[in-house]
Amino acid sequence: MSLLDDQKHIIERALRENLPDQAVKETLATLPRPRGRRVLVAFGKAAWQMAEAAYDAMPDGWTSGVVITKYGHAKGAIGAFQIFEAGHPVLDDNSVRATRAATRLVSDLSADDQVVVLISGGGSALFEDPSISLERLAGLNEQLLASGASITEINTIRKRFSNVKGGRFAALCAPAQVYSIILSDILGDPLDMIASGPTVPDRSTSAEALRIAEQYALSLSNVERARLGEETPKSLPNSHPTISGSVRLLAESARRACAELGYDAEILTTSLDGEAREAGRFMGAIARTLAESRDTLGATGGAQGAAGADQEPIDSGQGASRAGRKRALLFGGETVVHLTGTGKGGRNQEIALAAAEPLAGLPNVMIFSFGSDGTDGPTDAAGGWVDGTSYEKLRVAGYSPADVLKDNNAYAALEAVDGLIVTGPTGTNVNDLSVVLIGE
Amino acid sequence: MSLLDDQKHIIERALRENLPDQAVKETLATLPRPRGRRVLVAFGKAAWQMAEAAYDAMPDGWTSGVVITKYGHAKGAIGAFQIFEAGHPVLDDNSVRATRAATRLVSDLSADDQVVVLISGGGSALFEDPSISLERLAGLNEQLLASGASITEINTIRKRFSNVKGGRFAALCAPAQVYSIILSDILGDPLDMIASGPTVPDRSTSAEALRIAEQYALSLSNVERARLGEETPKSLPNSHPTISGSVRLLAESARRACAELGYDAEILTTSLDGEAREAGRFMGAIARTLAESRDTLGATGGAQGAAGADQEPIDSGQGASRAGRKRALLFGGETVVHLTGTGKGGRNQEIALAAAEPLAGLPNVMIFSFGSDGTDGPTDAAGGWVDGTSYEKLRVAGYSPADVLKDNNAYAALEAVDGLIVTGPTGTNVNDLSVVLIGE
Repeated sequence: MSLLDDQKHIIERALRENLPDQAVKETLATLPRPRGRRVLVAFGKAAWQMAEAAYDAMPDGWTSGVVITKYGHAKGAIGAFQIFEAGHPVLDDNSVRATRAATRLVSDLSADDQVVVLISGGGSALFEDPSISLERLAGLNEQLLASGASITEINTIRKRFSNVKGGRFAALCAPAQVYSIILSDILGDPLDMIASGPTVPDRSTSAEALRIAEQYALSLSNVERARLGEETPKSLPNSHPTISGSVRLLAESARRACAELGYDAEILTTSLDGEAREAGRFMGAIARTLAESRDTLGATGGAQGAAGADQEPIDSGQGASRAGRKRALLFGGETVVHLTGTGKGGRNQEIALAAAEPLAGLPNVMIFSFGSDGTDGPTDAAGGWVDGTSYEKLRVAGYSPADVLKDNNAYAALEAVDGLIVTGPTGTNVNDLSVVLIGE
Repeated sequence: MSLLDDQKHIIERALRENLPDQAVKETLATLPRPRGRRVLVAFGKAAWQMAEAAYDAMPDGWTSGVVITKYGHAKGAIGAFQIFEAGHPVLDDNSVRATRAATRLVSDLSADDQVVVLISGGGSALFEDPSISLERLAGLNEQLLASGASITEINTIRKRFSNVKGGRFAALCAPAQVYSIILSDILGDPLDMIASGPTVPDRSTSAEALRIAEQYALSLSNVERARLGEETPKSLPNSHPTISGSVRLLAESARRACAELGYDAEILTTSLDGEAREAGRFMGAIARTLAESRDTLGATGGAQGAAGADQEPIDSGQGASRAGRKRALLFGGETVVHLTGTGKGGRNQEIALAAAEPLAGLPNVMIFSFGSDGTDGPTDAAGGWVDGTSYEKLRVAGYSPADVLKDNNAYAALEAVDGLIVTGPTGTNVNDLSVVLIGE
C-alpha cells in the first residue's frame, strides 16, 4: 500500500470510530428507564446526527424533543422532534427562539421525568436565551474583546447574562434527572466550557464577574450589574454528564489504525495549539530528521563523525529499537490561523502546506492534517496533505508556500497538487488530527 | 537525581563533547606533513579557541597565522599568530584589515605549502575583503533587504562583491593545499553557506546574480555590474573541507547523556526553525500529553472510554513498549524571535517561557533550551528552563508569560523564578538544543 492509501484508511477508521451515533446508543443503554416522561434536547453542530441516533435506539422512547443545529446541518425530520436551524458562530434570533422551545419542554417536569441532553461543539451560539437583548449582549461582547479580557473572563461575564449557560439549563430541568452526552470540542474536555456548560456546575463566581467588570471598566446598566451578582449553580445533583467523544479518542483510533498498518505509532500530543503554519513547520522538521535518520541507517557518519575518537560511531541519533521501522507520529488539538491575506484555506490546510518545504525531496514521507467535522475553515475540504514531491509540484504550478501562507490561500495551492482531503461533513466535531508517516 | 541535576549533566556533557578543541586536534593529526610552510587562518566566533587548540597540538608546526574573532572573544596571545578582533554581526574596517592580513599570508605560497583554515559561525562578517567600498556594500545590502529578496539571493549577490567569499579564498591560496575544519552553525551544514563558503566551490552562478539584480531592479554602477559577471570558483582541487561540529553532533552527545541517565531518549529533529515561542508551546503540548499518559497508565478511560463496545480499553494512546519509562525528546536547530517589545531575552529563553503554561501543574517534567555558544540573544544567559511549578511561580512573581513574550522580556521573568541557564561563553557555536524530560 502507498502512504496515500494508508492516509485514507487512517482517516476513514478514525472518523468512523468517532461518529457520535454509537456513543449515543451505548450511553442511552445505560440510563435508567424513567417512570415519567423522557425528553430530548440536542444542540450543537452534531445535534442532528446525535438526535437521530437517539431516536433510532428507541423510536417509542421519547415524549418530545428539540434539536438545534447550524444552518444547513439538519437532514430531515426525526420522529416528532422539533428541529431548528440557527446562527453559528454568531447566535441570532433563531438561536433564542429554538432555545426557548427547549426550555418550555423542560419547564414543568417532575422528579419522575428524564431529560437527555446531547451536546456538541457550537453549542454556545446555538443554545442561548440571554437575559438582556441580543444587541446589548453583542455590545458587551465588543467591549470585552476590545478590553483585552481573556476568553475565560469573557465567559465568566457572559454566563451571567444567560438563562441556560453555566448550569442554569440543568437547574431549569429540576426536579427531573438530566443525562447529558457530550462530544468535546475543547482541548482537555473542561465540562463547564463545552457549549458554555449548560448542564454542569459553573466554576466561575459572581465575585469574579464583578471584579472583571471593574477591571475592564465595563459600561453596565444597573439591571446588568444586578445580573452579574446572580450566582450560577454550584451543585446540580440532578445532572449526570458523560464525555463520549474527544480528540483523545479520535487520536487513539488513528493510532490503532496506524499500528495495524505496521507503523510504530505514537500520540505525541492531544493538546496541540498555537499557529497552524508554525506547527506544520515543526512537524516537517521532525519528519525530515526521522526520515534522514532512516535513510542513513548504518552509516558511521564519515567526515561528520570526526568530532572525537572517544565517541561511538554516530547512529543517526536514534536508539536501535526504533531504527528502520515505519513510524507514525500523531498530534491532536486545534491550532489557529491569523489572517494576513484574503485567500481561502483552513488551519489543517496551512499545517500541511507549511510542511511542504521541510519535506522537500524526501522519499516515502507524508504529513496530513484534517478536521474531524470535515470542514476546515470556510472550505469544502477537511484538510490537506503533502509529501516529498509536493514542494516541487507547487513550484511548477506557480505556488510558493511562503507567499501562499502570507495570503492564507492554502486551498488553491493544495488543490493544484491534489493535496486536499475531502470527506464531506462527518457528523462529528472533536477537533483536528495531524499525522506524520515515515514509510520504509 | 532531580531533573535539574539531569539537565546540568546533559548540558555539561553535550558542550564538553562539542568544544572544537578535540575536533581540531583529531583532524590535524590526519593531515599530511607539508614539505613547505604551514599557515593558519582562523575566523569566526570560535576562532580563538580553535586556533589555540591547533597551536597546542603542534607549537612548532606553524610558519605563521592570522586569527580573527568577535570583539571580546580573544583571550590572549597564541604563539606568534596575529590576533584580530572585528565587527559582528555587522562587519567593520577591522574585519577588512584582518582579512587582508590573512590574504597577504597566503599570497605567495607554493604547491609544497599548506593552509589550515579554521571556520566557525560569524565568519561571514569577520572574514571579508569587499571589492567595493564598505559604504556601497552596506547600501546594496539595504536595497536587497528592502526588495524582499531571499537570503540565498542576497548571498548570491554578496559573494560577487567579495575577494574571499564563494571559494575565492581557497583560489587565492592555490597552488598551496587548503585544509578547512568547519564548525557548522547552519542547519543541514551547507558548506557553501557557512561563513559564505570561502574555501569551497560556489553553487551560485553569475547568471543567477545578474537575474537577481534585474528582478529586484538593483541600482548598480557599471563597475558593480561587471563584478556580478565575474564567476566564482566552481572547482577547487586544492581544497579539502571537513565538517567537525554541528547541531547533529551536539544533539547526539546530549542523547547519549540522557540514555546514560536512564531516559528513553530520541532526537526528534535537528532542523528546528520557526518562531521560538511557537516551538516552546509545541514542545509543551507534547510534554503535557506524554506526562499525562504516564500518570494515567493502566486506567481504562472511565467515562471517556464509552465511545464503543468494540474498542479496546484506552491505553493512554501509547504503545506498551514505551509506557512507564523516563523519556527524553531532543530538538536541535535554530528558531527565530520576532521583536514586538523592548525587553531582554533570547530565542532559547522564549522557548522555555512559552512552555510554562502547557507544563503548569505537571509533576516531574522539564523543558530546557540553550544556545551552544552560551549566549542567547543579547543576554549573559545561554537559555532557560521551566517545569510544572514555573507557571505558578511566575504568576506569584507578577509575570504573565503571554505578556512577557509580547514584550520579549523572557530574561527578567526566568531570572525571577531561577529559570535561567548560565554557562558563560563556551567556545563553540553549533546552534541550539531543546530537551523535554519526562521523569518517572
